[in-house]
Amino acid sequence: MNKIAVVAFGGNALLRANEVGTIEEQEKNTLDTCEKLIAILDQGYELIITHGNGPQVGNILLRNEAGYKEFKIPKMPLDICVADSQGGIGYMIERQMRNALNKKNVSKNVVAVITQVLIDINDSAFENPTKPIGPYYIKEEAELLGKSNNWIFQEDPRKRGWRRVVPSPKPMEVMNNQVVRDLVDKGHIVIAAGGGGIPVYWHSDTRYLEAIEAVIDKDLASALLAKEVGAEKFYIITDVRKVCVNFNKPDQKELDHLTVAEAQKYYDAGEFPAGSMGPKILAAIQFVESGGKEAIITSEAELGKKNCGTRITL
Amino acid sequence: MNKIAVVAFGGNALLRANEVGTIEEQEKNTLDTCEKLIAILDQGYELIITHGNGPQVGNILLRNEAGYKEFKIPKMPLDICVADSQGGIGYMIERQMRNALNKKNVSKNVVAVITQVLIDINDSAFENPTKPIGPYYIKEEAELLGKSNNWIFQEDPRKRGWRRVVPSPKPMEVMNNQVVRDLVDKGHIVIAAGGGGIPVYWHSDTRYLEAIEAVIDKDLASALLAKEVGAEKFYIITDVRKVCVNFNKPDQKELDHLTVAEAQKYYDAGEFPAGSMGPKILAAIQFVESGGKEAIITSEAELGKKNCGTRITL
Repeated sequence: MNKIAVVAFGGNALLRANEVGTIEEQEKNTLDTCEKLIAILDQGYELIITHGNGPQVGNILLRNEAGYKEFKIPKMPLDICVADSQGGIGYMIERQMRNALNKKNVSKNVVAVITQVLIDINDSAFENPTKPIGPYYIKEEAELLGKSNNWIFQEDPRKRGWRRVVPSPKPMEVMNNQVVRDLVDKGHIVIAAGGGGIPVYWHSDTRYLEAIEAVIDKDLASALLAKEVGAEKFYIITDVRKVCVNFNKPDQKELDHLTVAEAQKYYDAGEFPAGSMGPKILAAIQFVESGGKEAIITSEAELGKKNCGTRITL
Repeated sequence: MNKIAVVAFGGNALLRANEVGTIEEQEKNTLDTCEKLIAILDQGYELIITHGNGPQVGNILLRNEAGYKEFKIPKMPLDICVADSQGGIGYMIERQMRNALNKKNVSKNVVAVITQVLIDINDSAFENPTKPIGPYYIKEEAELLGKSNNWIFQEDPRKRGWRRVVPSPKPMEVMNNQVVRDLVDKGHIVIAAGGGGIPVYWHSDTRYLEAIEAVIDKDLASALLAKEVGAEKFYIITDVRKVCVNFNKPDQKELDHLTVAEAQKYYDAGEFPAGSMGPKILAAIQFVESGGKEAIITSEAELGKKNCGTRITL
């Protein structure tokens, strides 16, 4: 049985901050990132790729609104929009990963699987929705939409408008973790858990598997999948080469290595903000504490280089 | 090794002709159809589900237009739209199949895989685009769009307007047929080849796997996948209980059985129109001629009943 590495692509791996998100830009970025992954295969790892979907599902939600307004096409709920984004992004990564493999004459199958993730419907996150999704609205629109759809809105901290917020419950189980494991055992590269997975739960009365309007943090879902398949390494790709303390201050310092205890200490001291490095540190801690050997937080450009990024271990 | 059955869902399995396509309608229809599939599992078959995407990708294309018009969101090309639809529909079938299994206390994994299908870029279909996709336009709009995008438009035979037509090349290979086979070998139910798959080809100069604006017939792609995985039975689900000759005429006659030779003879005599039964008959012939034991064309309501539908054999 080969060792397994899980690599969580950041948004930037597909769509850079300074781009509008044309398909040409996304394909080029994806190919660049996939080419970097060959180094991990060369080290003898089987590969699972997970990815975010923020900009893409944001665009799908906007198109949903526009399509209803212009053509009265029924709007799809969030679960279908996330599933759509898993399809489109998964396909793009699969095709570009095949191109990266072909360029290096590596023969491997690549497969993108649609991923549902079980959550606990009693998760306290449902009492306090925090995850902004979809378009910005002016206050009056937000109030109207909130009333008619039973949605909750919050004002953007940077005053760009009001956005719908949904709960971000903890991932409990990646539903097809056994399937992902079976595929990796066969030597296939698997793309899974896109956008943190589609949150679902077993309804206690109907005993039906139901969808719920929520968003799971993609790094936490990736850490859970990495644990479930028994991965040895868990790479979290982000904008920076290494995790820093005193980030953006004169005494900013890059870290080569953190123990779980050190990472937790810095986290508790507020070194890692909730919207960016915070969830990645938590995901890394969760992976290592559940038995993983090493979590590595680094940038796409560093991937595969010796001693890249910040290593988090026990 | 268990026997394999491939079931190709028709559009009606998800979205009925008299419905607008709300998510509630689609979920209900999908669950109904999935419940019928339990009978096939009970007969000892492993199951692969394929499906169309016509109404769903039609809506995605309309939202694409509306999103660009309203918010200037970059339009996605057809391959991404098809991949999106594979994600959304695959997820919906997976979740409802899990519900159908749960109701009957059958324990099985269900997994939807995004599917690319190789085509031949020299296929003669590229000289004569025939497959209508996306919205209807008035003539002047169609001419404008045709010029600016290098698209070809045709007037709808029922005079509902002008629609873009794309080529419908022959499927040459389902790229992940080995992956689908591996999953079925493990006893998982697999959802694949949605909308006929995303057509791709290896560019002879760049050696890159490239997308192409085209649509593969979903029954032909399903027949190919059924052959590639060595399926014994291939069900094609449609609106009618059985294939008919003299369809909609006073002497209309339902057929219980057709040999491949008889099917071909009726096809050549123009009994099966190109837009409806024709491609299904061709797909059934292709499956049986390539070694499959039996193709069955029937309606969702008949599925699992003894001697359901029209059987096509050698």
